[in-house]
Amino acid sequence: MVLLQASTEALNYTWILIVSFLIFFMHAGFAMLEAGQVRSKNVANQLTKNLLTWSIGVVAFFLVGTGIAGIAGGGSFSWGGTASGLGFIDFLYGAVFAMTGATIVSGAVAGRAKLRAYITYTILLAAVIYPVVISFTWSATNTGLVEIITGTPFTDFAGGMIVHGMGGIAGLTAAAILGPRMGRFNEDGSANVIPGHSMTFAVLGTLILAFGWYGFNVGTSAIYGADGFAAAQLGQVAITTTLAMAMGAIAAGAVAWFQTGKVDTLYVANGLLAGLVGITAIPHTTIWQGALIVGIISGAQLPIVFKFVETKLNIDDVCAVFPVHGSAGVIGTLLYSFVAAGAWSGWTPNVGFMIEGLIPQVVGVVVIGGWTLTATAVVWYVLKAMGEARVTPEHEQEGLDVSEHGVETYPEFGSGESVVADGGIMSEDIEATRGSKDD
Amino acid sequence: MVLLQASTEALNYTWILIVSFLIFFMHAGFAMLEAGQVRSKNVANQLTKNLLTWSIGVVAFFLVGTGIAGIAGGGSFSWGGTASGLGFIDFLYGAVFAMTGATIVSGAVAGRAKLRAYITYTILLAAVIYPVVISFTWSATNTGLVEIITGTPFTDFAGGMIVHGMGGIAGLTAAAILGPRMGRFNEDGSANVIPGHSMTFAVLGTLILAFGWYGFNVGTSAIYGADGFAAAQLGQVAITTTLAMAMGAIAAGAVAWFQTGKVDTLYVANGLLAGLVGITAIPHTTIWQGALIVGIISGAQLPIVFKFVETKLNIDDVCAVFPVHGSAGVIGTLLYSFVAAGAWSGWTPNVGFMIEGLIPQVVGVVVIGGWTLTATAVVWYVLKAMGEARVTPEHEQEGLDVSEHGVETYPEFGSGESVVADGGIMSEDIEATRGSKDD
Amino acid sequence: MVLLQASTEALNYTWILIVSFLIFFMHAGFAMLEAGQVRSKNVANQLTKNLLTWSIGVVAFFLVGTGIAGIAGGGSFSWGGTASGLGFIDFLYGAVFAMTGATIVSGAVAGRAKLRAYITYTILLAAVIYPVVISFTWSATNTGLVEIITGTPFTDFAGGMIVHGMGGIAGLTAAAILGPRMGRFNEDGSANVIPGHSMTFAVLGTLILAFGWYGFNVGTSAIYGADGFAAAQLGQVAITTTLAMAMGAIAAGAVAWFQTGKVDTLYVANGLLAGLVGITAIPHTTIWQGALIVGIISGAQLPIVFKFVETKLNIDDVCAVFPVHGSAGVIGTLLYSFVAAGAWSGWTPNVGFMIEGLIPQVVGVVVIGGWTLTATAVVWYVLKAMGEARVTPEHEQEGLDVSEHGVETYPEFGSGESVVADGGIMSEDIEATRGSKDD
Repeated sequence: MVLLQASTEALNYTWILIVSFLIFFMHAGFAMLEAGQVRSKNVANQLTKNLLTWSIGVVAFFLVGTGIAGIAGGGSFSWGGTASGLGFIDFLYGAVFAMTGATIVSGAVAGRAKLRAYITYTILLAAVIYPVVISFTWSATNTGLVEIITGTPFTDFAGGMIVHGMGGIAGLTAAAILGPRMGRFNEDGSANVIPGHSMTFAVLGTLILAFGWYGFNVGTSAIYGADGFAAAQLGQVAITTTLAMAMGAIAAGAVAWFQTGKVDTLYVANGLLAGLVGITAIPHTTIWQGALIVGIISGAQLPIVFKFVETKLNIDDVCAVFPVHGSAGVIGTLLYSFVAAGAWSGWTPNVGFMIEGLIPQVVGVVVIGGWTLTATAVVWYVLKAMGEARVTPEHEQEGLDVSEHGVETYPEFGSGESVVADGGIMSEDIEATRGSKDD
Repeated sequence: MVLLQASTEALNYTWILIVSFLIFFMHAGFAMLEAGQVRSKNVANQLTKNLLTWSIGVVAFFLVGTGIAGIAGGGSFSWGGTASGLGFIDFLYGAVFAMTGATIVSGAVAGRAKLRAYITYTILLAAVIYPVVISFTWSATNTGLVEIITGTPFTDFAGGMIVHGMGGIAGLTAAAILGPRMGRFNEDGSANVIPGHSMTFAVLGTLILAFGWYGFNVGTSAIYGADGFAAAQLGQVAITTTLAMAMGAIAAGAVAWFQTGKVDTLYVANGLLAGLVGITAIPHTTIWQGALIVGIISGAQLPIVFKFVETKLNIDDVCAVFPVHGSAGVIGTLLYSFVAAGAWSGWTPNVGFMIEGLIPQVVGVVVIGGWTLTATAVVWYVLKAMGEARVTPEHEQEGLDVSEHGVETYPEFGSGESVVADGGIMSEDIEATRGSKDD
Repeated sequence: MVLLQASTEALNYTWILIVSFLIFFMHAGFAMLEAGQVRSKNVANQLTKNLLTWSIGVVAFFLVGTGIAGIAGGGSFSWGGTASGLGFIDFLYGAVFAMTGATIVSGAVAGRAKLRAYITYTILLAAVIYPVVISFTWSATNTGLVEIITGTPFTDFAGGMIVHGMGGIAGLTAAAILGPRMGRFNEDGSANVIPGHSMTFAVLGTLILAFGWYGFNVGTSAIYGADGFAAAQLGQVAITTTLAMAMGAIAAGAVAWFQTGKVDTLYVANGLLAGLVGITAIPHTTIWQGALIVGIISGAQLPIVFKFVETKLNIDDVCAVFPVHGSAGVIGTLLYSFVAAGAWSGWTPNVGFMIEGLIPQVVGVVVIGGWTLTATAVVWYVLKAMGEARVTPEHEQEGLDVSEHGVETYPEFGSGESVVADGGIMSEDIEATRGSKDD
């Protein structure tokens, strides 16, 4: 038997397929993480949004989004349908990153956004907003807007800013315009906690996301690059992703412990994710000591930024998507030049390297963040002006599962006392409604 | 250092191992999807069936099934134990497809089949029924029964008919013979809804299945085929699987929305799966426009076929396995010649191609469906005649968890009011029993 | 286009990365399996432990553990930070095995260990205890303690003893020193069952673990070994892992059925895992008939050893980690020479081979087990003497979620009646506390 030799291209694409599957599986992670963090009356709504984000988003990205990215990046409208063979795999590989960004938003607007509003925004995100973001950077035919402005390329390896920072900023913007859930804030601006219905699902989602994240970060590296087997880069990304994830969980848990004397489970879980987000822009260039620092900062900022958004901005970011994806993504992107191998000669900082490297990162964050915030704000203000952004107060009290989807997530569990968890609002009307539905 | 060159065989088998693991993981998906769709008193029963389907099924397939497939396909009884090395990997690769078919049945007979009846059927499915199906097609030493009849090969790339169609038809047959759960239908033939206990587990299962399905469909393609790196086929399968999945969810949700004004979460989830089932026979040959159509039809038929089975046939297919796996599998298999690249020259249909291609598909569906229905009916009628098919009414009311497994799935949750969800049947006796068990 | 040829090294490392991701995902499996087996008031505690086991453990293993392993194995302190490129991937590959061992312990000490005690032990396990174990065997610079003693290498392919046996013995030791949960045993030594809060999460965890286990066992084989494509070994490991898993589930379920007339779901699930543990030391060398036997013995011993630990030793091993990981790991390791290909000529046993092969296995089990037991006992006795091992009785009654983490896992579910499940202890004080918390 003659054994044919496998080509580097075949190995690269085998890898791309597998990591694309892993990144796709992050939708199960987001679905569980978000479902766990909402009330039981809104779980099916959250699950439906996650299913439809992928389903509607990937079709919109295929039919329109990739074409828009081409035009916005100075090229032609070469959409998904013009591809073939490996081009289809490249599309899928791009789509799983795009849909990760899209699905983040659903966690911020949970519990009160109308399904049709969310779907409308998702279509625009997949067809226009995200494609424009990648036209600034990854998919630019020319060098991309950030490089045009600064003369230096923007560094975002796997989407710390492009995917997660964008998603977190979009989520915060949408949540701000939509307003908080009923009972979330008191008239004096103080906040009521509305705990999620299942910590178990939230942690399951966290660990599914961490699993998929290895595909997200390590999978952004090819096995074979221009210089042959990319052993150094693969190892670097694997170790920095691992260490930043670990330190994110530890730091967030430690800050919560210092603040309250207890190790809040959800902060540990979200801190683990924030550590992953923090390193996502720079896993290939960060030294391992730097990955520890990125993880510590990304995790430690989580409880602080969350409290700031809650108590100072009074924005109801239900699943903490801004501290987890937004601020952690921005911070990691900006830390680039301080934790890269070139930034230090032993204990001596290379200040020139740090400043020079910081400039395109700042510009990139401002450009991507500004575009995302503006475009998101326009869409949600229009939806709001049309009276289509938010469900009625009755539907919100009753829960979106019944009003938007006609289902109960847990028909055999829960009871009247559950409403106590809902920001202190007593709602006999809801119970009456649910009671009659059971008949 | 001399770097040895990797062979195409090694890359192919690395891929086969990984996709086999992914397809194995679909058992977690089925377990969650089905557990979520049954009542809380029957969850452990459903979980046990899923664990044992794999465990008992894979041993039966190893010791007997592969041998039967060999004989039925015109070859010798070369069972699992006669293999070695790569032959063992080939066995595992075949077994994960076989067990996917087997586990589908458990969703149809939930809530009233005796465990021993289900196990008996599973052994026969793994040892005989499925092996005979693949002897008609994939594993035939000669050209297979379908090709012998029609002179043309039957097209079923990854098991749209062979695995899913078979499983769905087997499930419907078994459910029909077993009869509905108590209280499912009224004397006038009208139906009571018995909602599943957890939408969250059902959607989690859906997304795990979708993840594994990339292994199922894309993993059916080798990385290297006879003509070298199978780039075109891999890309084709990846994109058609993605688009059909997406459109299945959208179409099922849209039909439910048209019918009721609400976007039913479970229809969206099951629609996503129906889209995947629909494309499974033909992902390698369907053009992307065709994948959209296959997804739309597979998803849209779901609510309609489900209602037909429920209200016209009065069959209690608990987890909707027939509309999801059966009818969608049949439809996708039959759509082959209409959505393949050769079926269209631009907007002009190639009618000759369509008719010629349809013939072996129809014959294949009839042969596989007829054999599955007949064999399944014989087994379940015998079990029924022996009084071994169904648990006693007392055990059904009490729940199969307690009666068959001696456990409660959620000993800390739920309460007396839960029985309201059980098709309207009030059952004080059950509560009394459960109350005494807690003492 | 010139297609470069992929090297065997690149394919091997692609494989190592992917299986490392799969093994990492086993943390989600352990989290769900253990969360499902504890009471609802302790779920968040269990989840937090799992998150922190990985996060703290991997950093400790990176900074200290790998260095300790080097020294203890007769080499130098070459810790994680001295690596680069592929060395980082090798570290990650080693770390996912190490953390699997670490996380097993959390299931044994559930429901009463202080978080800080558990964290302290985890750090010592990752930094010292496990590194010393691998210095006896896998990571030894010289031939390793077991081979030094016996002159023959110790056979443990993927960590049946080194990872699982160690974890199970460590868990049993810690649980024994910590003492049982309140109400677990009566004064006459008889046991009360404290059922876990969710069989669904337990079975989900089981299936996630089985999925990851394919990475654990098959992934321990390289794709290319010294003799080229390791086709024979890969096939052997894949089939023996599959068959032992299947027979473990069947045997444990059958024993439970013989004992009680019911097929206990949790025994089937844990039996599946015990079958996997049993084969983990020897999947590469065991013949397929031997894998069936290993699975049967590993599964069948589970209900028996569990009952022995419970009723004879009165040790409260909450998640049955000793029968699943400890005794099954030891048994599988010792079965090596009886089920290997060399052990039989047809039906004739090769007694010499069996005895010669058994010696290093016994010595290895004694050395690893003795070290693990001793080191674990020292740590937990010191923690106990300092009054830091166990939470107060009030906190234990209230549940560790509230006392250690300040959260409720399911704020909307459950009610006063749930305490009945807690070993028969009525606790009005707890309810009063929880009631006031909700206000």
